[in-house]
Amino acid sequence: MEERLFNFSAGPSQMPLEVLQKAQQELLCYPGAGTSVLEMSHRSPAYQDIIDRASQSLRKLMRIPEDYEILFLQGGASLQFSMVPMNLAGREDTVAYAESGHFASKAYEEGARWAKAVKAASSREEGFTRIPVTDAVPADARFLHITGNNTIFGTAYHRLEDKLPKEVISAAGSPSAIPLAADWSSAILGQEIDVTKYGLIYAGAQKNLGPAGLTVVIVRKDLLAREKDPVVPTMLRYDIAAKNGSMYNTPPTFAIYLAGLMFDWVLAEGGVAAMEERNRRKAAMLYDYIDNSPLFTNRVVPEDRSLMNVVFTLPTDADTAAFLSLAKSRGLTNLKGHRLTGGLRASIYNGMPEEGVRALLDTMKAFEMTK
Amino acid sequence: MEERLFNFSAGPSQMPLEVLQKAQQELLCYPGAGTSVLEMSHRSPAYQDIIDRASQSLRKLMRIPEDYEILFLQGGASLQFSMVPMNLAGREDTVAYAESGHFASKAYEEGARWAKAVKAASSREEGFTRIPVTDAVPADARFLHITGNNTIFGTAYHRLEDKLPKEVISAAGSPSAIPLAADWSSAILGQEIDVTKYGLIYAGAQKNLGPAGLTVVIVRKDLLAREKDPVVPTMLRYDIAAKNGSMYNTPPTFAIYLAGLMFDWVLAEGGVAAMEERNRRKAAMLYDYIDNSPLFTNRVVPEDRSLMNVVFTLPTDADTAAFLSLAKSRGLTNLKGHRLTGGLRASIYNGMPEEGVRALLDTMKAFEMTK
Repeated sequence: MEERLFNFSAGPSQMPLEVLQKAQQELLCYPGAGTSVLEMSHRSPAYQDIIDRASQSLRKLMRIPEDYEILFLQGGASLQFSMVPMNLAGREDTVAYAESGHFASKAYEEGARWAKAVKAASSREEGFTRIPVTDAVPADARFLHITGNNTIFGTAYHRLEDKLPKEVISAAGSPSAIPLAADWSSAILGQEIDVTKYGLIYAGAQKNLGPAGLTVVIVRKDLLAREKDPVVPTMLRYDIAAKNGSMYNTPPTFAIYLAGLMFDWVLAEGGVAAMEERNRRKAAMLYDYIDNSPLFTNRVVPEDRSLMNVVFTLPTDADTAAFLSLAKSRGLTNLKGHRLTGGLRASIYNGMPEEGVRALLDTMKAFEMTK
Repeated sequence: MEERLFNFSAGPSQMPLEVLQKAQQELLCYPGAGTSVLEMSHRSPAYQDIIDRASQSLRKLMRIPEDYEILFLQGGASLQFSMVPMNLAGREDTVAYAESGHFASKAYEEGARWAKAVKAASSREEGFTRIPVTDAVPADARFLHITGNNTIFGTAYHRLEDKLPKEVISAAGSPSAIPLAADWSSAILGQEIDVTKYGLIYAGAQKNLGPAGLTVVIVRKDLLAREKDPVVPTMLRYDIAAKNGSMYNTPPTFAIYLAGLMFDWVLAEGGVAAMEERNRRKAAMLYDYIDNSPLFTNRVVPEDRSLMNVVFTLPTDADTAAFLSLAKSRGLTNLKGHRLTGGLRASIYNGMPEEGVRALLDTMKAFEMTK
């Protein structure tokens, strides 16, 4: 095999080698099926077993109670920006958003196409270097939307209680007055998320769950019953997807299979708690080094720092280019920051081993020595 | 390798072994990239090259003129049922449909959610055993929608001129008054389609183009400029997808890569003309046998028979079950008809070799001998 590099891409992103090897081994013929998963009818018993097991594994990993549906959809988080308001609110309803970054703003904009969208909080004026505190939400809001982890700005919600009013956080066994809807695309399965506090969680798969082209939605069943405007496309309705076991039409069969392999891998590694522990260690290595470095800087307030996306800068663009070049020569790729922020970013999802983070740290040290 | 069966599934469906082998070989590490396609950033030069080449190959295969965009989207043909009217018509506009089967009806129903949908023709009363003739379309219709190949009922449009009024068929270099929009999911690349006669063609990939989870849209550029109602989700807008090279958000990267491998395979096999010739031979073997059989029946009028989905029946349900059982014992799978029609169906897309069709024919003969 050609040498595999350490890939710090924000998504699609590095997957565990064991998962890729398993997929490779089964690619021509799924055991006992006489056909590749790529060719398998989604109506076959073999495929039903694959999707059922993926769903059960995710339920186990995230301790998803039985009163929540797990849906496997398409279109990425960006399509959820529209599906959430279209399913949970009417055209005349109020929907609320906490703006914590670029994708949070996009979610708000799509919400505003559909309903009366309000920004309940924003950290835009602080350059999104922190998670805003939402003090209050309009009493008639049909949901509050948050972006759990902000991939571009490197921030995340850690303790919901510190950032959100209590009327949107469900207490054990008692749904909140205003359901919390969250985009957890870039941290799902990378840190523990208490599903029972949410009405709805969604995530594009291409960071911690598997390949691009799959979106996971976890939604409390009572929310499926909310009245839908007749204009909502059938394909965008959660209740239809739920009723049809995510197979109203042909689902992204291979992507779901791969997500199932990822779930099995996380289970084998000790589950989400073990992932979070490892991810905290990985992130701490980088943040500690950056905070003590005269050269590298991270502007995010410590309590809101992402475990998944470590954003940092060097003093000049020339430094940034030189660092990227050094990193590349050492087999570390995709460390360039998002075009909105510039600088550097290391995305260190579940698929990035500690060895990769150490290699990055060594490169940062080596770079600092040259200055 | 475990034995691969002949898989007659209507979709997802059998793929050429060479395509699967190539994907398997590159699964851990795409040549020169140091990473799997599954892990590759869609913003990387390596991935840009993959998507560009897929697009160029499809353009070459279907002789798509430069005034048409090729889009790689998600959600299957079913999401196109909504996207076509949302992009090409306003809420008060008339949109027209020819109803030739189950999915044609679904397309109409979604059109009716959005605009003033009319059925310009239907073969429902004839049990969808033929393609209806559309004599006229309302003069103010924003498009006429057809389903090119009807997977469930085994019918297809062959000569558009025989079935559609001339105001919807573009003449060379001169767009029609009313653009023709077609779902060609189950025959694209399996038979020649003159793109210049259409305003828009779409296809779910999981039959002739690759894996489930990818939809290809071919749309004449002038249609992108039609005014959009502000409620249309950004993710459902063709113009936004076109402006962003199908990467407004993360596309289904691996599915597009696989489709590219399929395109390369069709090119290597001689292109669409060669595919059609082979598919005509495959279909003729089955139809000729069925038409001369005292046992097997096909009800579709000969001139409208699909080259891709050969539907047939046996006299009793017991016969059907016995035949399916015999076929399975000979390594032929997924021959059961759709639940709406019952009976039997052989889907013989590009990925089904002539050897598979001969094996099916032998099985039909063997079954007939037992009666």
